[in-house]
Amino acid sequence: MPGTSIPESTCDVLIVGAGPAGLMLATWMARCGVKARIVDKRGTKIFNGQADGLQCRSLEIFDSFGFADRVWKEANHMIEMCMWNPGPDGIIRRSDRVPDTPVGISRFQQVVLHQGRIERFFLDSLKEHSDIQVERGVLPEALEIDESKVEDSAAYPITVTLRHLSEEEAMPEQSKNGAGTSDGLFRSNLAADDSDDLIRKSQGKEGTSEIVKAKYMVGCDGAHSWTRRQLGWEMQGEATDYIWGVLDIIPITDFPDIRFRCAIHSENNGSLMVIPRERGLVRLYIQLKEIVPDSSGRADRSRITPAVILRAAQKILDPYKLTYDYCDWWTAYQIGQRVGTNFDAHQRIFLAGDAVHTHSPKAGQGMNVSMQDSFNLGWKIGLVVNGRCPRSILKTYQSERRRIAQDLITFDHRFSRLFSGRPAKDVLDQEGVSMAEFKQAFVKGNEFASGLSVDYGASMLVAKDGSSVEQGDGTDVGAASSASGKQVVGKQQLCSNIRLGMRFPSFKVLNQSDARPWHFQERLLSDGRFRIILFAGNVSSATQKERVDSFCATLDAPKSFIRRITPPTAKIDSVVDILTLHSAKRTDVELLRDFPSILHPFDDKTGWDYAKVYVDDESFHEGHGQAYKNYGVDPERGCVVVLRPDQYVGYIGEIEDVSDLEAYFGGVMIERGVNGS
Amino acid sequence: MPGTSIPESTCDVLIVGAGPAGLMLATWMARCGVKARIVDKRGTKIFNGQADGLQCRSLEIFDSFGFADRVWKEANHMIEMCMWNPGPDGIIRRSDRVPDTPVGISRFQQVVLHQGRIERFFLDSLKEHSDIQVERGVLPEALEIDESKVEDSAAYPITVTLRHLSEEEAMPEQSKNGAGTSDGLFRSNLAADDSDDLIRKSQGKEGTSEIVKAKYMVGCDGAHSWTRRQLGWEMQGEATDYIWGVLDIIPITDFPDIRFRCAIHSENNGSLMVIPRERGLVRLYIQLKEIVPDSSGRADRSRITPAVILRAAQKILDPYKLTYDYCDWWTAYQIGQRVGTNFDAHQRIFLAGDAVHTHSPKAGQGMNVSMQDSFNLGWKIGLVVNGRCPRSILKTYQSERRRIAQDLITFDHRFSRLFSGRPAKDVLDQEGVSMAEFKQAFVKGNEFASGLSVDYGASMLVAKDGSSVEQGDGTDVGAASSASGKQVVGKQQLCSNIRLGMRFPSFKVLNQSDARPWHFQERLLSDGRFRIILFAGNVSSATQKERVDSFCATLDAPKSFIRRITPPTAKIDSVVDILTLHSAKRTDVELLRDFPSILHPFDDKTGWDYAKVYVDDESFHEGHGQAYKNYGVDPERGCVVVLRPDQYVGYIGEIEDVSDLEAYFGGVMIERGVNGS
Repeated sequence: MPGTSIPESTCDVLIVGAGPAGLMLATWMARCGVKARIVDKRGTKIFNGQADGLQCRSLEIFDSFGFADRVWKEANHMIEMCMWNPGPDGIIRRSDRVPDTPVGISRFQQVVLHQGRIERFFLDSLKEHSDIQVERGVLPEALEIDESKVEDSAAYPITVTLRHLSEEEAMPEQSKNGAGTSDGLFRSNLAADDSDDLIRKSQGKEGTSEIVKAKYMVGCDGAHSWTRRQLGWEMQGEATDYIWGVLDIIPITDFPDIRFRCAIHSENNGSLMVIPRERGLVRLYIQLKEIVPDSSGRADRSRITPAVILRAAQKILDPYKLTYDYCDWWTAYQIGQRVGTNFDAHQRIFLAGDAVHTHSPKAGQGMNVSMQDSFNLGWKIGLVVNGRCPRSILKTYQSERRRIAQDLITFDHRFSRLFSGRPAKDVLDQEGVSMAEFKQAFVKGNEFASGLSVDYGASMLVAKDGSSVEQGDGTDVGAASSASGKQVVGKQQLCSNIRLGMRFPSFKVLNQSDARPWHFQERLLSDGRFRIILFAGNVSSATQKERVDSFCATLDAPKSFIRRITPPTAKIDSVVDILTLHSAKRTDVELLRDFPSILHPFDDKTGWDYAKVYVDDESFHEGHGQAYKNYGVDPERGCVVVLRPDQYVGYIGEIEDVSDLEAYFGGVMIERGVNGS
Repeated sequence: MPGTSIPESTCDVLIVGAGPAGLMLATWMARCGVKARIVDKRGTKIFNGQADGLQCRSLEIFDSFGFADRVWKEANHMIEMCMWNPGPDGIIRRSDRVPDTPVGISRFQQVVLHQGRIERFFLDSLKEHSDIQVERGVLPEALEIDESKVEDSAAYPITVTLRHLSEEEAMPEQSKNGAGTSDGLFRSNLAADDSDDLIRKSQGKEGTSEIVKAKYMVGCDGAHSWTRRQLGWEMQGEATDYIWGVLDIIPITDFPDIRFRCAIHSENNGSLMVIPRERGLVRLYIQLKEIVPDSSGRADRSRITPAVILRAAQKILDPYKLTYDYCDWWTAYQIGQRVGTNFDAHQRIFLAGDAVHTHSPKAGQGMNVSMQDSFNLGWKIGLVVNGRCPRSILKTYQSERRRIAQDLITFDHRFSRLFSGRPAKDVLDQEGVSMAEFKQAFVKGNEFASGLSVDYGASMLVAKDGSSVEQGDGTDVGAASSASGKQVVGKQQLCSNIRLGMRFPSFKVLNQSDARPWHFQERLLSDGRFRIILFAGNVSSATQKERVDSFCATLDAPKSFIRRITPPTAKIDSVVDILTLHSAKRTDVELLRDFPSILHPFDDKTGWDYAKVYVDDESFHEGHGQAYKNYGVDPERGCVVVLRPDQYVGYIGEIEDVSDLEAYFGGVMIERGVNGS
């Protein structure tokens, strides 16, 4: 390549891969105002098939970016799960019904909507909030990192050569074959990766390369991750012999539960999962007992066709009938569970999503865990690039997310074997799978699959007792600590249902100034700010009001820690947002009269801020949220909770524990001078 | 004009005016698949100010077209109304709080969002469902109707000459003045109409006219309606001396209730209404006591400025302070209440919205009643053009909507006087307004303003006892009647909370096939279909199941009335949609096994229809809708309800009363041959 003609540029963050994980990362960059680029080797976004289950937690995250409502409206809602097993006569029958989403854990329930729509909502959101655009048909072909510069915050230690493909080159093989049903095999794990092919075909042409110098790089480039290969890291785990087919069809059937999620174990013909979808579609995961891997451990793709998959489904569903007129998409995959050995290099290059964990798709977790990886990572990179947080917080990404990935594949390993196994004929049938055990695993899986059981370990970001090494993936990520070096440990006992390290739950509260009910979580937008939740308690009591006033006076003092971490010319709530929830009667108190101004800052152009003080009281139209009771907080005395920008609980303390609060922020934020507003 | 060069074309429906009333009409045309055009003399849509209160009923209607969620998300929700009156010391104080929307009447509450956004949602919906586009800078300049053809369904008796303005000509005067705050005075009733000016300026130029032959025409062209003037009709009613100013500002104030809707009567300085809005904006309606009309009865526009209006507001709010840095829009108007003498000509040309009723804007009803006019009219025109209904149903538009307009201005007349009057000092102060009387009127006003008290009188569309002449605006619109001429009267006693002539209320129900909770109203899409709601009762009981089976057998018979009114090649549910709500336990019954197929028709390509049968049962996540109890229907025996395409109740009967049901449809639908599917 003639080096002289290659254009060179810089960007803060380079994202490789524009699937859900990459788009989530880009969305954070947009909200943090970071200069980022996102490239994808494919020439077009996907339109059919692919992953499509959405956990409660993913919907909560979408809502924090403002587009959960679009998903909720278009998606199919999964309400009930039915289990079908062979009876004594060998004929399948419904043996159980359970709620698909455990009751009460979230304001959302698990839904299904195809990945192309999710990507569309991300793209619309990016367009609305930034000028970040996905650059399609662009892929990296060389990567270097200058290790001497990795600890210099201002440096661009990463050098990537990007190749721009022609439209023809970037088109997936499948699309070139023209019309007909979409076939996902070319992206399945049964197919080899095509990145090297793409690069080779395109090499030697002029004007198609550029060099990008980046501060950070995130590889969201899938199971065959090119980025991971450059770093020389491995995936650890194993594959199995189980081959599954997937059909997205509008079914014509007399099977009574076709609109419920179903787990069906047939006596001898394998298992099948029914996932009802939007627009009358149903996704079927079908065990292909007749397809077995060859000596290399891989199944022969050419033997797998929609007709083969349908026949397998028909056998499992017998005596019920199943056909279809319309097939939207189909694919096949081989079950395997693997986790990456490393999630980052020098806290400069990160991997997320399928690039660091692969598992079976049936629990509907893949897209969710992938997006949640980059949801965990994005704000950390954003705040470091913006100079608000030290680089040391970046280590928590691997500690927090690799641990989750390990938990996930452990679960998936067990669940896949239970689901792929032949049902036991009786208690003596030790080779068969016990249906009671399967149900138990399924119910536990549903909790796991909600995404709400995630519990991050102690670190500088989570003021929890114990060792970060033990509570994470083994990485040492320090601890919240005071200036004297003493570890800050939040007072978990002050709120029984707000758990350090877990996401802040949501109950309905009312805006003090207009009585409108909100789910508290709706106020926790993903805008890169930490949040102090002041449970102000019963501010009608003089004693309690004094405690609150004193707390506010400390925070509002000229050299308070909030002023020190907020840039001098920025608004006082631009780094840390304070939201108040009190438990007095709404009509007994007034915002301007009864709450210190730091809880509702004044602005010369827009007056007082009416969106920060809430009350736990009865609404006219939506009942009483009973937030204090549900959060498990003393309604008289309240407490103080700190939420990270991703809504995970970092700290809990008494209203008086301002020095601990200050120590927590001292460990994670960089002082910027004194804010004078 | 050189007649030879004027292009000529036909369309089924020509709509003049693309405000909310015109856009609602166009939306119906889109959903009914009718060839329609919509023209507006303005060159751009509006961006600021204008009407913005949205009633519950308007939100229900938006939801039936699929975009209520967009309004709900962006709008400010009005929860509580506060009344402020002078105390014995003459200083204003809060005297009362009431829920802004009466509790329990709708799944929506009153919200506020500016008209420009509402128009945007209509335009997006039109784009999604049709190729109807608003033609801007186009206005009619001549209108003829050939009376000899008005009763011929196939004829185009209306001839309209349309003039296409240049961009310069179509721009509102205000916009030409350049930057600065938007001023609505040019569209206020204090300003004269500019249609004639626009036509005069543009005349004599070549290539700017065209002739359109239309079957139907709807004038949604505002208070100065050009269409109304061509027809020579008058507005009846009167103006008052009260002049009001309107400011849309981000207020800077210490008034404690600025985020509540407030009605404030000052002792001597007039009244003020606070309407909190989206994006921190507040609309203030401010009585301008110092501006009085001249001898012509009109106020001098030039004396009214934002500064004058703000000063009036400051006096009323004293001792609270009010200023602003940002003003979004302002205007002024003179209160008047008038209703058009006629709403249609030959059931060919119709008027809707401000063209036939004007009143004060403070109750937030103008845009709502206007949209509801054309919501009432649109499906009737659509079904007549499509040959499904006889032309005779078109007469019910004036009968139903002129009566509503009359009720509205009677209420507004009284309310405006109570609000504009000086508060009484004591019970002996007979010239003053009693604050108790005002509160009473306000609460009644809120019920009225929900849009849910609309109760259409007896007609061929509403099988109600009594005379259509007395129950409507005086027009004779016939009655539902059997072949023998006997009037069909629905059995109101079968459902205490589903009222003949009123909109069908909504409670939560579950889909039988997937257990998903829906508000029943969500299933009543505005798609031009009548609906039979089969309250199937307790289908677990053999007796009841026999009644339901027998009902279905009659409807499914080869020459049933449903088959006779459905085109032979169309789907069986394309004219009348049957929705079932039963009261058995959900898990005791199955769709395919227990419900006759006409309740969930089979399609060769898409299989069974899983979206038509619902159950009144407990949900996992959203409680129990108690629909039978709330509808007031016997959960054992059920009943049959017919909804018009606008969700108003047309008929109620026992499951056995198929001959009455047939008579009802016989009166409103045209037979199309026998549907063989």
